[in-house]
Amino acid sequence: MSASSLKIVRRKARRRVAFQGEFGAHSELVAEKFGAPVPFASFERVFEAVLNGEVECGAIPIANAIAGAVKENAELLWRHQRRVKIVAETVAPISHCLLGLRGSSIRAAREVHSHWQALAQCQKFFARHPRLKPVETYDTAGSAKRIAETGDLSQLAIASERAAKRYGLRVLKRDIGDAKWNATQFYLIARADSELTLSRRIEKTVFICRSLSEIQPFVSKLLRLEPIATRRRAFETHYLAEVSGAAGAENVQSLGAFGRV
Amino acid sequence: MSASSLKIVRRKARRRVAFQGEFGAHSELVAEKFGAPVPFASFERVFEAVLNGEVECGAIPIANAIAGAVKENAELLWRHQRRVKIVAETVAPISHCLLGLRGSSIRAAREVHSHWQALAQCQKFFARHPRLKPVETYDTAGSAKRIAETGDLSQLAIASERAAKRYGLRVLKRDIGDAKWNATQFYLIARADSELTLSRRIEKTVFICRSLSEIQPFVSKLLRLEPIATRRRAFETHYLAEVSGAAGAENVQSLGAFGRV
Repeated sequence: MSASSLKIVRRKARRRVAFQGEFGAHSELVAEKFGAPVPFASFERVFEAVLNGEVECGAIPIANAIAGAVKENAELLWRHQRRVKIVAETVAPISHCLLGLRGSSIRAAREVHSHWQALAQCQKFFARHPRLKPVETYDTAGSAKRIAETGDLSQLAIASERAAKRYGLRVLKRDIGDAKWNATQFYLIARADSELTLSRRIEKTVFICRSLSEIQPFVSKLLRLEPIATRRRAFETHYLAEVSGAAGAENVQSLGAFGRV
Repeated sequence: MSASSLKIVRRKARRRVAFQGEFGAHSELVAEKFGAPVPFASFERVFEAVLNGEVECGAIPIANAIAGAVKENAELLWRHQRRVKIVAETVAPISHCLLGLRGSSIRAAREVHSHWQALAQCQKFFARHPRLKPVETYDTAGSAKRIAETGDLSQLAIASERAAKRYGLRVLKRDIGDAKWNATQFYLIARADSELTLSRRIEKTVFICRSLSEIQPFVSKLLRLEPIATRRRAFETHYLAEVSGAAGAENVQSLGAFGRV
């Protein structure tokens, strides 16, 4: 390894990257691509940690290939516009695994614990196993952790293979999701005044529009438009917009752009 | 009352209008404007009842002034496009009331039961009453009904004044919502082949766009744009669009318009 590449590795290793969930969450693998993952209990805490300097950046899911937008993060971006910027974007494949304790089996188990989104993405599996009751929890990896702690053989979890390794569980079945093309789009956010830049090529611009008429100049390059209820006035809606390229960047700047990734 | 107006009243009284929730729900008041309200357990069942002819039409909430879109109904409209049409639109004010049994009081109570959206819209009330624990249920009016049945003085419910009357509860406090301007936009849906027409003036056109580029011709008249994840291909998104006037109706027709209301 050359001195310069070692320097890059060291810099990356030092950079703390917030993610939401327990160790073993899909988000942890994304955070790890950019530095040392630091877990937080909620997306709100991830933003807080980025803003108060506890971490250099945070990996937040913004859309899932099946379930669509992660509304909460669009709302948090809206709330913290001009205070945060987006420094990178990545799309991570999601593979749902069925995990259990050593000695557990699909036949003998009664319940499958996981986050509601993961349960919803494994409907065909539950249709084939009507005896297994889906139980909603706050987190995929958190469910794996709890089963490892309680030692209950009747409970299984849907989580990542990474979670199985982390909590000493067995993978009873791999890829139980309905769609093999499941993936999640993440933004890497940093403080607006941070010097961190990670993207080399400008591929898209992300910004807030305060009305549909503000979007008109960009409409031919729109990649994505996510409504956000402002909760300040009846039916008032702003939009998180993604536009291809840096086009119209000068206009977009005044609208409070999050950056070009 | 003239013979002709009597005829109109009779026709309205005969028309069965599906709504989601228990009697006493805010939706019941909307359904009642158009005919005789018939309760169903889920929005999916409301659509089913409209499609199989159990009812002539259904009142579905599409957006709340504070919380934004009712995603599930945008998704159901998308799923049943070309099979249903929108025959009217109405915006109903929402007033959250605190209900309890005779003998109950805010001081002595421990829990407040309601739908999560109603609880979320009364945050200031809970901040002023930290001893009261919010408990999520499936329905506002359903919570009122259950308290009336169990006779538990320690439990209160957030629901409509109508629910109080229906289930014999007292209104302990009126208008406990954070925003006095709270309201919900409803569509009245009917089968696409129904002869029912209710709107006299054409004010807006509602239709599905299969991409952001399909929306371009209408963008200057866009009133609302709601993304819908199709769950068929990774990140594939269609949009429920509302456009002012009947403008472009001929183009919109090919996109599977729901009608002009």
